[in-house]
Amino acid sequence: MSVSTELPASLIPTLPGPSYADAALFGQEQERIFEAYWFAALRGAEIEGPGAFRTVDVGRENVIVVRGRDRQLRAFLNVCRHRGARVCMEQSGTGQRKLQCGYHAWTYALDGALISAPNLSQMPDVDRSQFGLIRVHLREWLGYVWLCIAEEPPSFEDTVIGAVAERLGAADDIELWGIDRLEVGKRITYDVNANWKLIVENFMECYHCATIHPELVEVLPEFAEGYAAQYFVGHGAEFGENVAGFTVDGSEGVAAIPGVDEEHDRKYYAITVNPQVFINLVPDHVIFHRMFPVAADRTIVECDWLYLPEVVESGKDVAASVELFHRVNEQDFDAAERCQLTASSKGYAKGGVLVPTEHHIGLFHEWVTRQLDSAQPIGADTR
Amino acid sequence: MSVSTELPASLIPTLPGPSYADAALFGQEQERIFEAYWFAALRGAEIEGPGAFRTVDVGRENVIVVRGRDRQLRAFLNVCRHRGARVCMEQSGTGQRKLQCGYHAWTYALDGALISAPNLSQMPDVDRSQFGLIRVHLREWLGYVWLCIAEEPPSFEDTVIGAVAERLGAADDIELWGIDRLEVGKRITYDVNANWKLIVENFMECYHCATIHPELVEVLPEFAEGYAAQYFVGHGAEFGENVAGFTVDGSEGVAAIPGVDEEHDRKYYAITVNPQVFINLVPDHVIFHRMFPVAADRTIVECDWLYLPEVVESGKDVAASVELFHRVNEQDFDAAERCQLTASSKGYAKGGVLVPTEHHIGLFHEWVTRQLDSAQPIGADTR
Amino acid sequence: MSVSTELPASLIPTLPGPSYADAALFGQEQERIFEAYWFAALRGAEIEGPGAFRTVDVGRENVIVVRGRDRQLRAFLNVCRHRGARVCMEQSGTGQRKLQCGYHAWTYALDGALISAPNLSQMPDVDRSQFGLIRVHLREWLGYVWLCIAEEPPSFEDTVIGAVAERLGAADDIELWGIDRLEVGKRITYDVNANWKLIVENFMECYHCATIHPELVEVLPEFAEGYAAQYFVGHGAEFGENVAGFTVDGSEGVAAIPGVDEEHDRKYYAITVNPQVFINLVPDHVIFHRMFPVAADRTIVECDWLYLPEVVESGKDVAASVELFHRVNEQDFDAAERCQLTASSKGYAKGGVLVPTEHHIGLFHEWVTRQLDSAQPIGADTR
Repeated sequence: MSVSTELPASLIPTLPGPSYADAALFGQEQERIFEAYWFAALRGAEIEGPGAFRTVDVGRENVIVVRGRDRQLRAFLNVCRHRGARVCMEQSGTGQRKLQCGYHAWTYALDGALISAPNLSQMPDVDRSQFGLIRVHLREWLGYVWLCIAEEPPSFEDTVIGAVAERLGAADDIELWGIDRLEVGKRITYDVNANWKLIVENFMECYHCATIHPELVEVLPEFAEGYAAQYFVGHGAEFGENVAGFTVDGSEGVAAIPGVDEEHDRKYYAITVNPQVFINLVPDHVIFHRMFPVAADRTIVECDWLYLPEVVESGKDVAASVELFHRVNEQDFDAAERCQLTASSKGYAKGGVLVPTEHHIGLFHEWVTRQLDSAQPIGADTR
Repeated sequence: MSVSTELPASLIPTLPGPSYADAALFGQEQERIFEAYWFAALRGAEIEGPGAFRTVDVGRENVIVVRGRDRQLRAFLNVCRHRGARVCMEQSGTGQRKLQCGYHAWTYALDGALISAPNLSQMPDVDRSQFGLIRVHLREWLGYVWLCIAEEPPSFEDTVIGAVAERLGAADDIELWGIDRLEVGKRITYDVNANWKLIVENFMECYHCATIHPELVEVLPEFAEGYAAQYFVGHGAEFGENVAGFTVDGSEGVAAIPGVDEEHDRKYYAITVNPQVFINLVPDHVIFHRMFPVAADRTIVECDWLYLPEVVESGKDVAASVELFHRVNEQDFDAAERCQLTASSKGYAKGGVLVPTEHHIGLFHEWVTRQLDSAQPIGADTR
Repeated sequence: MSVSTELPASLIPTLPGPSYADAALFGQEQERIFEAYWFAALRGAEIEGPGAFRTVDVGRENVIVVRGRDRQLRAFLNVCRHRGARVCMEQSGTGQRKLQCGYHAWTYALDGALISAPNLSQMPDVDRSQFGLIRVHLREWLGYVWLCIAEEPPSFEDTVIGAVAERLGAADDIELWGIDRLEVGKRITYDVNANWKLIVENFMECYHCATIHPELVEVLPEFAEGYAAQYFVGHGAEFGENVAGFTVDGSEGVAAIPGVDEEHDRKYYAITVNPQVFINLVPDHVIFHRMFPVAADRTIVECDWLYLPEVVESGKDVAASVELFHRVNEQDFDAAERCQLTASSKGYAKGGVLVPTEHHIGLFHEWVTRQLDSAQPIGADTR
């Protein structure tokens, strides 16, 4: 990282421009970040009933997540142990009794064990237990399925739960929203022509809010000052006086989530879980972003709007709350794309500067840099 | 090649996954394999009459194949010796008296000799014999035009004819089909998103037949056992009892090729000629595949169905025989594409395994590896 | 450069084929040639009135060219000094009072100075003079805006004006056409699948004219001999006897430019200004090419047909003169694309040859080679 040593104290450097454009560096990020940390891949409720499965990309790997007869979710690399064919070609399915490769019919149980293959009985020296599908670590939390491709995953408690607790200031506060019991009222997928780090940096600061988020600032007037909710530990941005709900026009939202107490009412909280999750909390819903980086200059973002089951099932119109953050997303991703355009310019070869309300982004830059410098992923304790 | 040393005797390793995905390695394969060995480029009958020509890609080169006034075929790099413009822009033509570059009108005879150029008479020191089109080695066999880009081609007898003889078990057996006198009844071109080696490996084994080739196994019941015709020297797979011909529904084929004797009747033979030809022999037709690798993950396959001239000229319906191997092709190429998807997965980083009925694929892997390890192409005697 | 030492005196070598295809080499050319020399980016009249601007690509950079309240043109890298967002997203605009980044509202005067930013008053240690937009060197000549991305540009007098003078043989002859006072009667943009050097080489020689430019040779019969106007210092190619004007059919042109004296009447002059400008002079108009190289195998060419203001404003039909050089352009760019196709062939690995009427292209090759071998751009005196 090329850093000017002459900046005034108000300004600290960003990463240099090439960090956002270099294909080889992005490959290292895939290996040392997205394939090394816990990755929120999909929502558990998307895989309903024994034998249901979905396939999902994690870093550069395609993973099968399947629910067993014991109703447990398990995850495997989507690679046959025989000749490497992709085992599941579909994005999803239900009621499978086994996972069978379509090339030579090697057949695996839902727990990944090799159970049969043509002529296998003529190969008595082949130990089936050595040729099961390769396991991927899996945890369920907040209703999402978190996967880790690494052989030795970092502590989920430290790197995921710890990151949420650190932001909210109390380990259990996230439980107030009961996110695992909410349902997806709306999902929008964005295809963003920008490096994933630009999207993280954008989410972490609110210095841009007054410029690009008129609707958001109307609902959360303090954002006009440029201090993001994430600037302070445990801080929620307060709704404006005449704002009835977290909606595009400040109109009333839907039924509040019962667990949200008075302290957290009429407030907006934002959490970043490195490397690819953003969680937004308001009294009546949760907005949950998962990023899927696909190239140095391209990131797919899946955004879920989560509501109480009775809200979703009643078919109640949630358009006004969806529209608010959908606009914020579009405004933010446009901004990230503007930055991507200059990543290779000599005018940004040494990067730019962070103003005081953005200085905490420097911690993210340090975290990224540390992953790339080190051979091993590093837990939250050293972040 | 990273090889596990712990495999049971029934299993031997494949090539590692990156062998099928790495662009630099593919460049080496172009240089040391496709531009070093004999390459079946096109069918001679496609170039009819003096002055007819076709252009064709061989490895990374574009080659002109032209029939001279003496009715001989000759081949040249399609590169003008003056400023390098592509001389023939069309894929084919007829009745040419010369080959003239469209940029500065440098003009070559059909034997490649430079015969004229603007102002050439004012350059008396230029020896025309030094500036002819660059010759590419050419052989005609089985009615196909085989080209070799290398300056010193390997022995055609060893690497091509020898490969066929080795498979059929007798040097002259291929002559029974009189392939040079057959005509193309149907040609289908496939654009396959897979590495060429996956297509070769697939063609060499029949362990997959029961799973993906229901129609083929119906016609050749022994294929259900997983032993490819290529597993044995000189073996032809026998038609099923109630099978009248090598057709999609086992119905009768067309007029049998007279030379095919009783020993070879009602049988299917398959031959691989490294690096890019497959020959399939049945009593009434021949199916001839040529591969044109274009990228690590993309291969064009041209497949000809060849019949007796009287069959083709009579307009007889050959759809039932075409349909059988067309389905086989589609089934095989789908399988190869499934494998390509995982070539970069860490689940296939060390490759997979070959079961006993696939062990002969290991010879192909050794052949490929030897080409890349050596500076010189190696003839059949050392395969 | 791999050069055969055995060529007869009539022939000298070209650059080797890979010079026209290698992506890394093209990156070096961007850095050491297009971002190091003066680059004719746009026509000044396209930016009319204070606060008008255009954005344009120069090498790998996007540049804002803006007219200040003082009516002076200035140019800046289109990169915000804060977080690097592209400041101007539009290709053009008018009446701007300032340049404001759309991400965090950092705001610059039309002279590039940082004038305001949110919360800037709370950062008293930030010296605004250190955070203005990064200046790009700008000169206006012949009505065009010439930019130089380098910190220390080479001498404009030597590398641009000197190149024109050297070709015309007299420093001031170009002034006869009063090009800065002409207007664009027609602009055509060509997207050429060829390396920029192939386009330069083509423009420099006329050995191809008889083969590919029938209309041009009709108007300029001496071109049939293969000697380009650029072969001689100060030479203009004479119109044919029955040719009334520089038009596709030899019909009369439009009103002659008053400054063109008898010595230069009824003649065609062609000038190359390295690395990306061609100027064509005829009595009643000027054809001005600017190349924008975008990849080793792709170049955008913008071609302007410039006439007297009264001709353009009268709406007089200039189609016959436009059509002549439009055909020449299409013929030339087709030829360059033919050469691009073989750049990676082993048949052109050492390049080709230049005949005597092309030998001056060798000077261009030497110039290119010298830029890539040297760390610093080199002025005209050493060309």
